Amino acid sequence: MSGKATRLYPLPPREIPANAIYEDLEFPSEHIHASRPYVIINMVSSVDGKTAIGGKESRLGSQTDRQTMRNLRSKADAVMVGANTLRAEKLSLGLDAPRPARQPLAVIVTTSGDLPLETNLLIGEGQQFLVICPRGIAIRLPAGPGRTHCAPPTQSGNVDLGETLKMLKAECSIDLLLIEGGPKLSYSLISANLADELFLTLAPKLVGDTQEAALIAGPTPAARDLNLLSVYLAADELFLRYNFL
Amino acid sequence: MSGKATRLYPLPPREIPANAIYEDLEFPSEHIHASRPYVIINMVSSVDGKTAIGGKESRLGSQTDRQTMRNLRSKADAVMVGANTLRAEKLSLGLDAPRPARQPLAVIVTTSGDLPLETNLLIGEGQQFLVICPRGIAIRLPAGPGRTHCAPPTQSGNVDLGETLKMLKAECSIDLLLIEGGPKLSYSLISANLADELFLTLAPKLVGDTQEAALIAGPTPAARDLNLLSVYLAADELFLRYNFL
Repeated sequence: MSGKATRLYPLPPREIPANAIYEDLEFPSEHIHASRPYVIINMVSSVDGKTAIGGKESRLGSQTDRQTMRNLRSKADAVMVGANTLRAEKLSLGLDAPRPARQPLAVIVTTSGDLPLETNLLIGEGQQFLVICPRGIAIRLPAGPGRTHCAPPTQSGNVDLGETLKMLKAECSIDLLLIEGGPKLSYSLISANLADELFLTLAPKLVGDTQEAALIAGPTPAARDLNLLSVYLAADELFLRYNFL
Repeated sequence: MSGKATRLYPLPPREIPANAIYEDLEFPSEHIHASRPYVIINMVSSVDGKTAIGGKESRLGSQTDRQTMRNLRSKADAVMVGANTLRAEKLSLGLDAPRPARQPLAVIVTTSGDLPLETNLLIGEGQQFLVICPRGIAIRLPAGPGRTHCAPPTQSGNVDLGETLKMLKAECSIDLLLIEGGPKLSYSLISANLADELFLTLAPKLVGDTQEAALIAGPTPAARDLNLLSVYLAADELFLRYNFL
């Protein structure tokens, strides 16, 4: 991939290669939370707040967005998605550079256990994966470096995300956890005050389809204020970094 | 209102008073379309693409956003909204500076004729307003400088927006038309290729309520590519200007 990006904010502006967005990212100390990882959410959205075209997130972002996603993964100890995201399309949660030094742990959260692991989860070379489900759900794992962890269910039968994050820190040494959606998982984390930062790629498109998912989605308002940390621009696509106030 | 804004893009960055965003705006010649106005849409959205909190758009944007909206209105010959927007809350479509040199024409588009004009439309001093409805709908106008125009209905019974824009140019000399939503009106214009620019204020908030309206909303995809023209930043709020490709 060629092309240039410009860091517009903080000032002064600085031109960098488009594939270097977030390469020199710094996070607060890994010890900012004593008992859970530092949690960052990365999503791509159209200008009208839709996270997919025709149900597929991969149709929305550019090649630069996908490289930026990989740069974030390279910083993370684990990459987590909800089961809906895995059901929507084939996806890798790893790094695809030749022989990456270290693959993040792939984590899939499911309530029902209905997971197309064999067909839709592309496991990177040397990558391990972990399925989180409520107690009592049976998961059939494909051959490979996968395992399951049963978390206590919440009153509504979902995975208890607070307990899950504690477990990831204590048992898997996950200090930086990257969430790649979908909207329900992001909403659950944000509304439980378990998310620290939001990385949003604003694709220069309008989707306009009322059926497409929004960035976060839940039954009741979770209005939260954000603080803008940085803005990058590459070919009309904006890369926004916020933290939660 | 005090405070500073920074134009981040185009480069170089430039600091301006926060109340001066879009004050020096330039548009393509008024003759770019022979038979309709140049159409710009201005909306405020949360980072997750919602255009209201608790059903009210006014809760989303800052004071700077409201001043920016007035700066855009001061450039426009007419300001148009859909009836849902008027039903949602009291609103003015005019300028509230002391004795503005010229008020834009307020235009309300309705399919049903159900319009709370007397309670919700705050008419500025010296401002005229126009209600556009399909033929056969009776509108009860309050006392004042209002009139109605009946447009031919489309097959679905809505106002024919293409014919309406032609009428506004030919009969009312409207060269620059500002659309302030709601999502259905914006969607209808964009999907009919009748919109030229989108001004989006990205409020630094997550709403997360699946009931709130999106920026544009329609039954089928209207995926469109946008071209980023400028980016301003004031107190974590981004002011984005796009045109349609």
